[in-house]
Amino acid sequence: MAKDKKPRRPRAETPKGFRDYFGAEVAERNEMLARIAEVYHLYGFDPLETAAVETVEALGKYLPDVDRPNAGVFAWEEEGDWLALRYDLTAPLARVAAQFRNDLPSPYRRYAMGPVWRNEKPGPGRFRQFYQCDADTVGAPSVAADAEICAMLADTLEAVGIPRGDYLVRINNRKVLNGVLEAVGLNPAEDRETADAVLRTIDKFDKVGPGGVRELLTTGREDQSGAFIDGVGLGNDVADTVLAFMQAKGADAGATIGTLREVVSGSNIGATGVDELEQIGDLLAAQGYAADRTEIDPSVVRGLGYYTGPVFEAELTFEITDEKGRPRQFGSVAGGGRYDDLVKRFTGQAVPATGISIGVDRLLAALRAKGRLDGTTKGPVIVTVMDRNRMAEYQAMVGELRQAGIRAEVYLGNPKNFGNQLKYADKRNSPVAVIEGEDEAARGVVQVKDLVLGAKIAESASLEEWKSQPAQREVPRADLVTEIARMIGAGD
Amino acid sequence: MAKDKKPRRPRAETPKGFRDYFGAEVAERNEMLARIAEVYHLYGFDPLETAAVETVEALGKYLPDVDRPNAGVFAWEEEGDWLALRYDLTAPLARVAAQFRNDLPSPYRRYAMGPVWRNEKPGPGRFRQFYQCDADTVGAPSVAADAEICAMLADTLEAVGIPRGDYLVRINNRKVLNGVLEAVGLNPAEDRETADAVLRTIDKFDKVGPGGVRELLTTGREDQSGAFIDGVGLGNDVADTVLAFMQAKGADAGATIGTLREVVSGSNIGATGVDELEQIGDLLAAQGYAADRTEIDPSVVRGLGYYTGPVFEAELTFEITDEKGRPRQFGSVAGGGRYDDLVKRFTGQAVPATGISIGVDRLLAALRAKGRLDGTTKGPVIVTVMDRNRMAEYQAMVGELRQAGIRAEVYLGNPKNFGNQLKYADKRNSPVAVIEGEDEAARGVVQVKDLVLGAKIAESASLEEWKSQPAQREVPRADLVTEIARMIGAGD
Repeated sequence: MAKDKKPRRPRAETPKGFRDYFGAEVAERNEMLARIAEVYHLYGFDPLETAAVETVEALGKYLPDVDRPNAGVFAWEEEGDWLALRYDLTAPLARVAAQFRNDLPSPYRRYAMGPVWRNEKPGPGRFRQFYQCDADTVGAPSVAADAEICAMLADTLEAVGIPRGDYLVRINNRKVLNGVLEAVGLNPAEDRETADAVLRTIDKFDKVGPGGVRELLTTGREDQSGAFIDGVGLGNDVADTVLAFMQAKGADAGATIGTLREVVSGSNIGATGVDELEQIGDLLAAQGYAADRTEIDPSVVRGLGYYTGPVFEAELTFEITDEKGRPRQFGSVAGGGRYDDLVKRFTGQAVPATGISIGVDRLLAALRAKGRLDGTTKGPVIVTVMDRNRMAEYQAMVGELRQAGIRAEVYLGNPKNFGNQLKYADKRNSPVAVIEGEDEAARGVVQVKDLVLGAKIAESASLEEWKSQPAQREVPRADLVTEIARMIGAGD
Repeated sequence: MAKDKKPRRPRAETPKGFRDYFGAEVAERNEMLARIAEVYHLYGFDPLETAAVETVEALGKYLPDVDRPNAGVFAWEEEGDWLALRYDLTAPLARVAAQFRNDLPSPYRRYAMGPVWRNEKPGPGRFRQFYQCDADTVGAPSVAADAEICAMLADTLEAVGIPRGDYLVRINNRKVLNGVLEAVGLNPAEDRETADAVLRTIDKFDKVGPGGVRELLTTGREDQSGAFIDGVGLGNDVADTVLAFMQAKGADAGATIGTLREVVSGSNIGATGVDELEQIGDLLAAQGYAADRTEIDPSVVRGLGYYTGPVFEAELTFEITDEKGRPRQFGSVAGGGRYDDLVKRFTGQAVPATGISIGVDRLLAALRAKGRLDGTTKGPVIVTVMDRNRMAEYQAMVGELRQAGIRAEVYLGNPKNFGNQLKYADKRNSPVAVIEGEDEAARGVVQVKDLVLGAKIAESASLEEWKSQPAQREVPRADLVTEIARMIGAGD
């Protein structure tokens, strides 16, 4: 940005990785958020809206050993403090739970909806600002809280238009995984690095399959591009146990639980984890959230290191066609789990917490892929301007229409070229245009034009041709509102 | 943030000037935004949601002569580009109107709602992130667009709960003010600095009165703290004309217009401005937005330099009591006007635009001051936990209640101390608590407790005392939902 370039005009561009949302995109998202909020509200969750900006300290995003924030957040220095845009809604919740711990009810059930920001390389369909919609319970140690979150997630998906059978809430438990590691002689608490490497490997199960996971757990593997990925360096026997765990899903929850008990035998933490999974499964089954909506699935990992117990993932099970025309499962739209240590960062005291985060933009994409959102908004009735001097009368017409709940507006561009008015109505997806020139005014009538019928010829036709179409009728001025209400099927 | 301080825990605090919004605060704002959106939608406006982040270049917030952003925005450097949080919703609209000028309908009516950020010194009730809610029409040169915005603003205020008589949309025109300056021998286009100083002075009319304005326009004035404020340096005759303009408001619009014509006599731009005001007044009157809702008021200035024609301000006219117990008018909650040059920055072509911005937080404060929002949320029915082993049954109960549309939850804290469960219900503002121990379960009944009645004694009473209260009744388990629906007056 050298000085000599100053006189040029500014570029009208969003920063890289950011985008604008127009019309139906905004309305459909707001509608979805409102429906999700309704379910959360019914479950007793209260809304919380934190600011977009947090201290880097509160976010826990200082890089180790340097006084600079992690590169993954958008951050800036402000009078000696580093501030940053929140990168999720969980870190602000942990801060709030600590800051207001004496005032908030305990347990504290809260939901939050809003954008989060990631300073990551943008890619196709990957933006640096996107919406999350979270619900968490802070201060509830029992797995009943986890079961509640899973039930609520299922209800939420149905409320936004994903029918039963098209989704599955899959549940696992970090404690079981830790039990597996313990059973093969690894101590996750002592060797965090290896444990995390195992987690990351298991997370690739969907992509690389059991054979690939085995290679990655042991000696390594060549990926699709030919690059060699180092293995974790575990023995084959250990890999066997991990794979047995991941593939423990049986014909029903009981069978899965049985296999898991075997795999973790000898590990206390593993046994606790299996007990918890069993309880969650029982609680869900008792409430009718059976195998058609939820399942125990040991292959669910969830990337984040901070989970300490049950983890959940909502997957859409229907197929869509990807960019290359191949069918594929839509995949995950929400995930979460129990994280008992996040508030402790601030207060020193462990506070049990569990929750989920819904990827709103992905969920919207799913509904669009299924044709359940059409991406259009009903356009307004357009009162055209035939005679500039009659503007007050045109504005009175739209006033009457709005009183009746009908979306309506006067054309406010340059009225000289009537064709432009029609093109505008077309672009706005208008159902009806109203025309009243001097002649009509003198006779106390208006022309009403059904644009759904008329759209095809609107672009080429002259005013006279256009007016002769059968879709256009003359009605008494006094009947304007009732006539249009009839045409568009009452107010929208 | 020296290294030696590293081991301490992070502070659980919002950055200075930011805050969190809880429960009803969030719900009430969302409800208000939804009502405003409904009105905007009826008027044919489409939603637009831009990202929080813009390039500083697009925001036009580079300081003159330095390659650093204006201190008033939160900004950071990112691979050589300066990015910043938007400080209003108008600058992003100008960028969008330029970037998508070939795709958007013209005129483009859009509304936008969301937070904006100001890097300003925070003060009591003054935050660095706050909501705006804007509606603008881009590409409509006629004052009919300005009249439409004013009508919509009046409708919006009524839709959110400000009754007619409690607000006034005041309208002025920058062209009239420029005409006044021209009439006294100043050329605003040539001497922008003096013109802006006059604008700023007029804007202080409400605070300092006509005498104060006269002093500030001429030789200067001592303010309340004793500090001397330099005057603009105009002559007394010029001050006379400016004051005549500001006080031109007559008994009705006709009288005001008549006086204004006299004050600007000899100035073309002034005459155009008065014509425009007259047309806006006529258009509004023809649609029924008469003197009880809108008025021509020459004392309205609106601070921003970028307005080029009509300017509007919505004022709440009722009195509230300020922090010191003194009655005062609530004042402005929305403002806007015509700005024909903002898009030109990008494209070089002038694009007429006009719009308003509603200060959502101030409007919410007004409704709270008038007692029209109570700041509370209906709490959930609480199913207490008398017996941990019956958790599945308790969760089934809340499931049934939710099916009936009743907000409900199981107590998920440590159930040992029953008093804590009651305190929790109290804190959540719960209408009803449900109690089912082993005994009740065996008999097929539940206890339902009306907490509105019981609240008074909840804190001190023991379980036995509490259970003996008349507000508590035993009902068959099968009648749980119907009984509670009856108690709380149907679903919430």
